[in-house]
Amino acid sequence: MVIAIDMMGGDFAPLEAVKGVHQFLLQETSSANLALIGDQSILAQLISDNNIPPGRFSIIHSDEIIGMHEHPTKALKEKQRSSIAIGFHLLSSGKADAFISAGNTGAMLVGTLFSIKALEGVLRPTISSVIPRENGGTGILLDVGLNADCKPEQLNQFAVMGSVYAQLMLGIDRPKVGLVNVGEEEGKGNILAQAAYPLLKENKHINFIGNIEGRDILMDKADVMVCDGFAGNILLKFAESLYEISAREQVKNEYFERFDFEIYGGTPILGVAKPVVIGHGISKARAFKNMILVAQKMLETDVLGKMKEELQ
Amino acid sequence: MVIAIDMMGGDFAPLEAVKGVHQFLLQETSSANLALIGDQSILAQLISDNNIPPGRFSIIHSDEIIGMHEHPTKALKEKQRSSIAIGFHLLSSGKADAFISAGNTGAMLVGTLFSIKALEGVLRPTISSVIPRENGGTGILLDVGLNADCKPEQLNQFAVMGSVYAQLMLGIDRPKVGLVNVGEEEGKGNILAQAAYPLLKENKHINFIGNIEGRDILMDKADVMVCDGFAGNILLKFAESLYEISAREQVKNEYFERFDFEIYGGTPILGVAKPVVIGHGISKARAFKNMILVAQKMLETDVLGKMKEELQ
Repeated sequence: MVIAIDMMGGDFAPLEAVKGVHQFLLQETSSANLALIGDQSILAQLISDNNIPPGRFSIIHSDEIIGMHEHPTKALKEKQRSSIAIGFHLLSSGKADAFISAGNTGAMLVGTLFSIKALEGVLRPTISSVIPRENGGTGILLDVGLNADCKPEQLNQFAVMGSVYAQLMLGIDRPKVGLVNVGEEEGKGNILAQAAYPLLKENKHINFIGNIEGRDILMDKADVMVCDGFAGNILLKFAESLYEISAREQVKNEYFERFDFEIYGGTPILGVAKPVVIGHGISKARAFKNMILVAQKMLETDVLGKMKEELQ
Repeated sequence: MVIAIDMMGGDFAPLEAVKGVHQFLLQETSSANLALIGDQSILAQLISDNNIPPGRFSIIHSDEIIGMHEHPTKALKEKQRSSIAIGFHLLSSGKADAFISAGNTGAMLVGTLFSIKALEGVLRPTISSVIPRENGGTGILLDVGLNADCKPEQLNQFAVMGSVYAQLMLGIDRPKVGLVNVGEEEGKGNILAQAAYPLLKENKHINFIGNIEGRDILMDKADVMVCDGFAGNILLKFAESLYEISAREQVKNEYFERFDFEIYGGTPILGVAKPVVIGHGISKARAFKNMILVAQKMLETDVLGKMKEELQ
């Protein structure tokens, strides 16, 4: 198992990426090998500075970087030697099994959609986010931004992909699926939600429990929470801001501390053939380590293969 | 000035409604008269029990109640002697200047749209919510649920109505208007947001500052935050759940305490000819008092009249 990592992506790269790799290698007894993509000499120096023993990783040299604000498609096309472009090349050629980056999100999405294929039958890949629940568990919200406008059939597929993810990655048996909506009763909502409800209700691959409202997101009413990427993205970023606020306000509370995105590492793209995990631009060592763990678990559980089966 | 109050609406009515009226009458030196709609004998008893001195209020008898889960249109039609139906009758006949209820939200919305007219030029009325900001101020989010599906022109009108409300009711000069979106740059978003952006940009009645993201909602980036009622409702209910969680988690923090909806009383309907304020089903005395204060201030500032002017 080879996990490729863009060591140059993110506001605190490459130092925090190197530290994250170190943390992963220190605590893990897994057999995963890491392909560290970035400037050979800078990485070698940082690896030496941090006393990371050799073995289980290799450096893949890259002398270009796609900046956080560059146009994704244009940058990917023009910067073939960038760490992101090389990562996708490794992935599509089979030299890596998964790819991780905290760099330009748009470039990661475009790269994923063009370099590795969507799973057979998937209308559109999706991105999800783990949501901490007050009862101590976690749920999954999707889509959180890849698909701002959705069709009902897409929401139905998100429900399947989210259920497989919740089962294999979060260890939730028969995950409850809720449609994020403005009211509880069937028939409520915008045109999209109204049309998605009957599809979800009839879907035998999922355990649909009906509509959930905004106030249910942090409760354990549903494990898999399905919505379009517009509402989902706004909700996710709102939730993320809670952690920053509670930190600034010096709220010492275990639950609010679980809103720290670094715990969850990054956002995997679901519905594609191979694991791609996108990190926050502000990822530090712990986030990098956890992204590697997410990618590793996705490979170990074959979560994407299971999605393909369920969507047949 | 006569403010009509549905004394029978809400989970804790009529006792908490009576207590709220009492709190209002005790602290207020205003000249507002209250028309208390509900069961004459029950109300008279509670008023006597609570030692509310006579004057500045009258009881309007009603012997029917629209339950929280009744079908709005059907119930309003069949229960002409219900407190909500009577409230709208007072309002439309000019015997009351404003109407408040913590009862069946759907019946309040339907009653408003059918009994009192939308302001000239208003495509669709809207409901908004005050959002506490970390810097101590407040912002306004709209629509929060009346219009699950919106057209770009509606969002543009929400921006105008929200700006007038922020100015006259929240005391914000030249309120900054933000379009709630999934990214900062122009061109981001779903089809609706993409189409609304240029309208907002060219609107000379507002101070448009561009897109805002989910993480900006609790900051002071924009004072008036515009979105469709689907995203807005989910966001609002999510924010409301924060207060409940922080109370359960015993987070002692001034900022999180400001998420207590009772502080803001209720949700006024904007874009109609007269003030209608809808309260939470779980409103207690303080929420009732604050709803009356909102209605009173709306009348004093003529905020709806100003909206009409700005929308000409």
